[in-house]
Amino acid sequence: MGSNSFGNIFSVTTWGESHGKAIGAVIDGCPAGVEISEQEIREALLRRAPGKSLYTSTRQEEENVEILSGVFEGRTTGTPISILIPNRDADSSKYDSMKEVLRPGHANFTYLEKYGFFDHRGGGRASGRETACRVAAGCLAKKVLSYFRIDCFAFLEQVGDVKISTESICPEKIYTSSIFCPDRIAEEKIQLLLTEIKEGKDSIGAVVGFVAEGLPIGLGDPVYEKLEANLAKAMLSIPATKGFEIGSGFQAASMRGSSHNDIFTQEKERVSTVTNHAGGVLGGISTGMPLYGKVAFKPTSSIQIPQETLSLDKKKIVFNLPEGSRHDPCVAIRAVPVIEAMLALVLIDAILMHRSSTL
Amino acid sequence: MGSNSFGNIFSVTTWGESHGKAIGAVIDGCPAGVEISEQEIREALLRRAPGKSLYTSTRQEEENVEILSGVFEGRTTGTPISILIPNRDADSSKYDSMKEVLRPGHANFTYLEKYGFFDHRGGGRASGRETACRVAAGCLAKKVLSYFRIDCFAFLEQVGDVKISTESICPEKIYTSSIFCPDRIAEEKIQLLLTEIKEGKDSIGAVVGFVAEGLPIGLGDPVYEKLEANLAKAMLSIPATKGFEIGSGFQAASMRGSSHNDIFTQEKERVSTVTNHAGGVLGGISTGMPLYGKVAFKPTSSIQIPQETLSLDKKKIVFNLPEGSRHDPCVAIRAVPVIEAMLALVLIDAILMHRSSTL
Amino acid sequence: MGSNSFGNIFSVTTWGESHGKAIGAVIDGCPAGVEISEQEIREALLRRAPGKSLYTSTRQEEENVEILSGVFEGRTTGTPISILIPNRDADSSKYDSMKEVLRPGHANFTYLEKYGFFDHRGGGRASGRETACRVAAGCLAKKVLSYFRIDCFAFLEQVGDVKISTESICPEKIYTSSIFCPDRIAEEKIQLLLTEIKEGKDSIGAVVGFVAEGLPIGLGDPVYEKLEANLAKAMLSIPATKGFEIGSGFQAASMRGSSHNDIFTQEKERVSTVTNHAGGVLGGISTGMPLYGKVAFKPTSSIQIPQETLSLDKKKIVFNLPEGSRHDPCVAIRAVPVIEAMLALVLIDAILMHRSSTL
Amino acid sequence: MGSNSFGNIFSVTTWGESHGKAIGAVIDGCPAGVEISEQEIREALLRRAPGKSLYTSTRQEEENVEILSGVFEGRTTGTPISILIPNRDADSSKYDSMKEVLRPGHANFTYLEKYGFFDHRGGGRASGRETACRVAAGCLAKKVLSYFRIDCFAFLEQVGDVKISTESICPEKIYTSSIFCPDRIAEEKIQLLLTEIKEGKDSIGAVVGFVAEGLPIGLGDPVYEKLEANLAKAMLSIPATKGFEIGSGFQAASMRGSSHNDIFTQEKERVSTVTNHAGGVLGGISTGMPLYGKVAFKPTSSIQIPQETLSLDKKKIVFNLPEGSRHDPCVAIRAVPVIEAMLALVLIDAILMHRSSTL
Repeated sequence: MGSNSFGNIFSVTTWGESHGKAIGAVIDGCPAGVEISEQEIREALLRRAPGKSLYTSTRQEEENVEILSGVFEGRTTGTPISILIPNRDADSSKYDSMKEVLRPGHANFTYLEKYGFFDHRGGGRASGRETACRVAAGCLAKKVLSYFRIDCFAFLEQVGDVKISTESICPEKIYTSSIFCPDRIAEEKIQLLLTEIKEGKDSIGAVVGFVAEGLPIGLGDPVYEKLEANLAKAMLSIPATKGFEIGSGFQAASMRGSSHNDIFTQEKERVSTVTNHAGGVLGGISTGMPLYGKVAFKPTSSIQIPQETLSLDKKKIVFNLPEGSRHDPCVAIRAVPVIEAMLALVLIDAILMHRSSTL
Repeated sequence: MGSNSFGNIFSVTTWGESHGKAIGAVIDGCPAGVEISEQEIREALLRRAPGKSLYTSTRQEEENVEILSGVFEGRTTGTPISILIPNRDADSSKYDSMKEVLRPGHANFTYLEKYGFFDHRGGGRASGRETACRVAAGCLAKKVLSYFRIDCFAFLEQVGDVKISTESICPEKIYTSSIFCPDRIAEEKIQLLLTEIKEGKDSIGAVVGFVAEGLPIGLGDPVYEKLEANLAKAMLSIPATKGFEIGSGFQAASMRGSSHNDIFTQEKERVSTVTNHAGGVLGGISTGMPLYGKVAFKPTSSIQIPQETLSLDKKKIVFNLPEGSRHDPCVAIRAVPVIEAMLALVLIDAILMHRSSTL
Repeated sequence: MGSNSFGNIFSVTTWGESHGKAIGAVIDGCPAGVEISEQEIREALLRRAPGKSLYTSTRQEEENVEILSGVFEGRTTGTPISILIPNRDADSSKYDSMKEVLRPGHANFTYLEKYGFFDHRGGGRASGRETACRVAAGCLAKKVLSYFRIDCFAFLEQVGDVKISTESICPEKIYTSSIFCPDRIAEEKIQLLLTEIKEGKDSIGAVVGFVAEGLPIGLGDPVYEKLEANLAKAMLSIPATKGFEIGSGFQAASMRGSSHNDIFTQEKERVSTVTNHAGGVLGGISTGMPLYGKVAFKPTSSIQIPQETLSLDKKKIVFNLPEGSRHDPCVAIRAVPVIEAMLALVLIDAILMHRSSTL
Repeated sequence: MGSNSFGNIFSVTTWGESHGKAIGAVIDGCPAGVEISEQEIREALLRRAPGKSLYTSTRQEEENVEILSGVFEGRTTGTPISILIPNRDADSSKYDSMKEVLRPGHANFTYLEKYGFFDHRGGGRASGRETACRVAAGCLAKKVLSYFRIDCFAFLEQVGDVKISTESICPEKIYTSSIFCPDRIAEEKIQLLLTEIKEGKDSIGAVVGFVAEGLPIGLGDPVYEKLEANLAKAMLSIPATKGFEIGSGFQAASMRGSSHNDIFTQEKERVSTVTNHAGGVLGGISTGMPLYGKVAFKPTSSIQIPQETLSLDKKKIVFNLPEGSRHDPCVAIRAVPVIEAMLALVLIDAILMHRSSTL
């Protein structure tokens, strides 16, 4: 399968560069009968669109969306669903000065070496623009999950050294924050930090958390298709990610078995665990407890501070981002809905796959 | 493709339970002409075998290995390579007492719920025994990589709160340490800690680092088959793993773009970067700089301290590991060669896949 | 991978129903650097479009084509190529009368049973319209093959009982025939037969032949990815196909080994065979001799003769195709370029796959 | 996925050469809870084993079978099932004379060109021996199908110009015939023909028919995973096959729509068709009517008549099969259970895949 496809049964193929005519996704393997509308997808896209807060880049994307196939009279029919998102605001002339530059932290160098070709206008396929297709596909995946009463969400957990309190994370608090931060006190600190970063023409890294609730026991397939393995791949396929944790994550390294082991207990006729260091999976299979984890993001590569680098012909130069270039001081903010989308895609695929486990 | 297979072109299918007659791997897609012998695989297996140090479980595994197909006159022929590893030491009677127990931190609960069946003797497919097949397949992958002058290795980076100095990591120091620890000072501290843990009948988590050197530029396929995405999946498919980092990892969250961006420079006619926070990948494609990262392991679930849990029929019980049961105080030690194997498998697949990038 | 995708490395995902807004294809895994234009694809589509001859349905399709991604400055870049073909002539009101009918020989019955939903306007995904996307993708595949000096073509070999002489098949004769028939004498007979069929408001079956020349030795992968196995799948995935032959085909059943075995000989420093009953493959791998075979097509299901059938609510009815409905008396004619396209797709995938056979 | 694997969900990976230590299959994705024993597989293998009739090669294969994993207390557990079949009778010295010869009709030439290596002893992976693994895996697939009350079988339909009457095909008549021929009159004629062929030291081609009964409506996935497309691939992956038909097959070319269209009717509350030219599929999806088709086989390539050919170093030679070499005058006879096995594998995969079609 091509490298621009994701998922085994519920599979998504995305296409499009940041400065082409359009981007899009083809979703194959969605069960028939799911209610979905262009409006729902448009709303999901708007949530991730820049311009939403002061701390994401300011370009206005109206995000028109067209469903070109696979939906008839408001429901999926079992045939592939083609979603097209036109690229509106694509003045690529300002990228001309970047044509001859190995941009620090960017992928134009590696694309050029790999393929011998690179569409220098914007980031091409390596651009954050590509993630809009993930959000569109994820919107459909979330809709399918809703039929199984599964809910999943993501949120800003840390920016620089400011961490949220993880005590009271809920979707309402996330979606009412312009930076997807459920903790109002941390939110304020983060906003101050982002303002400072922005004024310094710099950027900063962050951590995004994710949770899924309502999972049945049994999702995920040993050995190589463990639920957390597919989650890790999904998350690390998002641009700018540098790390992944499930449950206790790297903290587990400092823990002892006697405190890390989650004790089984019974709650309302159902087996659960007293703690959940496992993060909702044992042996790659969901336990029915909440699935949670974290994803680390590097600081945005595009900064307005001059940087030393090489030109394409390997000469030392100083690179300045063109005046007026848009950039996010913290790329992770806009990635929050992308994490949510990838989580939903992994889960719906696991649900459909699980159907063949038994007779 | 089945969930017991890994890789697209160089693909490995593993099978076998810890207490069955044998375990094995079938490697398909290995290029023809690679020199390989049973002896080489046996040596790779012995390196990971328990009994090697005081801190891994003491069962003696002789690790006989048979190559049943795909190799003729000492070289691979292009046909599938079947490797069989007999299970020697498999007295399963001592597992009888575990038949009716939801073992804390173990996967027997989730397997039972998923499939309705579980081979209670040992961990079945969820056992660490399965990873011997990864090491066998990884041995062949490493051999193929050697034709491309690529070297990869893994090492113990942290146990509990003891961290190694990452300054002088080299294969020689790793392989001469009984716990795969390249830093002699840290090694001593870790051994003290492990002795303490063992005496306390408890277990402890750890972090394993990995490095690959000599990579060409261009490995990895955007968008969903990024090199780091496939690495993350590979690593999180190993039992007991809880986290993955590439390059700067979670530290990136606290960094600014101005210091995280790796500055391009030229070294001996070749583009390189002054720092390597990226960890050897940009946009999912290898930069030619060393590829490095980390994997977090939880403490071994099997401990000799009594634990509360439920019986299969959902009654509260106290579970004691049977007298004389073997267990590793730190499962990560034995996982070091497994990390190395998975790294090699991801890389060889990326190399073969990369061949179709251009005309 | 979804069921609307074809190919392992050079993979095509198609989408769209006959009466939706558009149909399209996403081609992933095309090597970078291939010259391709919208105009080339448009020409390939026009060749298969109805209206071309008296014997294919008369609707005029202008076949606009848009390449939305993956091509920059006239060359493929290694990123996915999204091709969109708008549906122009889509008055679906005439299909209203078909909404409640199990159409004999059609797939609306099976789609309804499988998914519980069916877009009754036209044939949905089961329509011949879908094959336009194969032709578009095949046009690119043929272009890539041209870099390897491989040529492939298909032709009308038999309609009813009229068979062509297979002595002098060449692309020029095929493409100058309005029914893709390289034998002028047979062409005339077929045209008479088609006129008769059309006047009788009936339809007729046919056989389409295919040939590929210039193949290197070694394409195709044992055991399950034999070249002829993938060809067979490719061809039987085309609507209305009922049979497939490679080389001697069903005639082989009446032959003896002493005459069927192709004797190896040497021609211009190169091993070839005196005969080619094998059809260019031995053990699933190309021999370097011409690859040839045949595909059987059933008569078009839509006929203007009244037919007994059931309504959706399982009552006996007589079904009449609405007045003025377009239909092809022989669906195989329009399928000739589709066969050519599928042949090209199988070959380019085999070429890319073959690159990993050796070190 | 590797080229030695077959199937998406119920997937089989086979390995082993005709003259290695053993051959085997790993079946992944089999639902948990299926009863299966080594004895059942042994019986399936014996049915295809040579020595069974005068007209298949006379080597005695005892066919020991070991199930090494995935079955616990007589039932599948959801983990991969490894089946090992030792190679008993493997005196490879008689193959020495073949080492330097391009054997007419054989695959040693193409393997050598593809890989640069070939295990000249027997046919390697191209040998009929490989198909034993298909039969073993097919035996399990048939067992799973029995839980769904689906039956499938294959039979000898034509040898040379002798064709059976297809009126009264039933499993009993097939399995009581030493040549899998359900028509006693044709059986006798075929036996006479085979005796003649054998005496002439030649070989002959044949056609094998197949049928599956009891299928639900809805199996098969449009567009590229049509049921007949996957069947065609499955069948053409069997050594020595040259053609495939579903339903009316190549006869459809001479038919008119008015007689080819199967009229829908109602039989016992269930939609069926009066005729079944479709062969049980419409639009790639099963109709619930019997699935049937045919597979063409070329005459066995190994004959005892001297043949002209080339040596490896491209010199003209006359090749004689070594005295006492075993060969089948009609390779199709032994392939009958292989066709049955591949049919079962395609069907069980389609059943499991179909589970994700709807919510």
